[in-house]
Amino acid sequence: MNSESYPSQVLENAVKEFSQLPGVGRKSALRLVLYLLKQEKSDVFRFAESLRRLSEDIVYCKSCYNISDTDICDICSSPKRDHSVVCVVENIKDVMAIENTQQYFGIYHVLGGIISPMDGIGPDDITVKPLQEKVEAGEVKELIFALPTTMEGDTTNFYLYRKFNKPNVKITTLARGVSIGDELEYTDEVTLGRSLVNRLPFENTL
Amino acid sequence: MNSESYPSQVLENAVKEFSQLPGVGRKSALRLVLYLLKQEKSDVFRFAESLRRLSEDIVYCKSCYNISDTDICDICSSPKRDHSVVCVVENIKDVMAIENTQQYFGIYHVLGGIISPMDGIGPDDITVKPLQEKVEAGEVKELIFALPTTMEGDTTNFYLYRKFNKPNVKITTLARGVSIGDELEYTDEVTLGRSLVNRLPFENTL
Repeated sequence: MNSESYPSQVLENAVKEFSQLPGVGRKSALRLVLYLLKQEKSDVFRFAESLRRLSEDIVYCKSCYNISDTDICDICSSPKRDHSVVCVVENIKDVMAIENTQQYFGIYHVLGGIISPMDGIGPDDITVKPLQEKVEAGEVKELIFALPTTMEGDTTNFYLYRKFNKPNVKITTLARGVSIGDELEYTDEVTLGRSLVNRLPFENTL
Repeated sequence: MNSESYPSQVLENAVKEFSQLPGVGRKSALRLVLYLLKQEKSDVFRFAESLRRLSEDIVYCKSCYNISDTDICDICSSPKRDHSVVCVVENIKDVMAIENTQQYFGIYHVLGGIISPMDGIGPDDITVKPLQEKVEAGEVKELIFALPTTMEGDTTNFYLYRKFNKPNVKITTLARGVSIGDELEYTDEVTLGRSLVNRLPFENTL
């Protein structure tokens, strides 16, 4: 669609901004903007305001690098959390996924990415150093690696393992196995093989 | 996803706003917001600003009801346009589509909807009255109906035709026929039948 044909500069600017979002083309962007134009002015203003606050008020927790409204996030500042167990994740979505399980009571460390030589992301581009400082401070007893089960995730796991594998720190990783609700015939053979090798005492599944 | 698990209220608000857009669920909304968080603060601020201006600065042309930055839009105020030919369309997307053809030199009238008894939209909910005033002022020589070829479009066409079919106003509609580039075997039979009945002098297609 020809950009010259927009009847309004204000409209065109808004379409341009929306179309820069991932997965949103110019046609969808126009659809979204026209939808907003049909809403109450105050609703659109509130939307704008939420974005302005996003650009100005969001901070990253100084301890775990999770997104936060305060310098130290709610999880890191909670006395109910076990600060000696640190779950290492790639990004904030992983924190939310694990929090949703309601099965974890330690704290997190958000790497903000994973090591990926193909994309030029090395250990210095993610928050490895602050994690190292945290571990060296001596409070951490267990590091749980909860990274994606991809090549990049495995690379990062291996790098972190070599760095942090010291006698006083236990290093664990998420169990890999058959998903709950899955049929065996549809489980890929690598996962199935691993779940046989790492089979559990039956009582653990009760 | 449990809304309680958002690590930040500011984040949650932004996700909520995005997820109110059509076709955007909470997961996509979170993806979009996290994408924005990775951008420069000034870019996000510009996005917010474009929305704020959308809510405050957009006006509708007082003559044709198209979206505009000014009281009278560029098309309606252009002396190069033929003000005696008015193309009646449903919404601003149709204006843009017709402008993109670069084949139309009259002006527009944007109804802002079409008559749809099922959705409770009657003639008073769209800009029929201003169109009537425009026609009664006597400047209009031709009305081109360019509404969707749906049942609602046909209903609206018929309503407008009955209202405006007077000796001094010519009423036309977009030609219906085989799309350029289409194979006959894939053209639906209603369209094909109509295009036979309304067949053109061959010279017109050259």
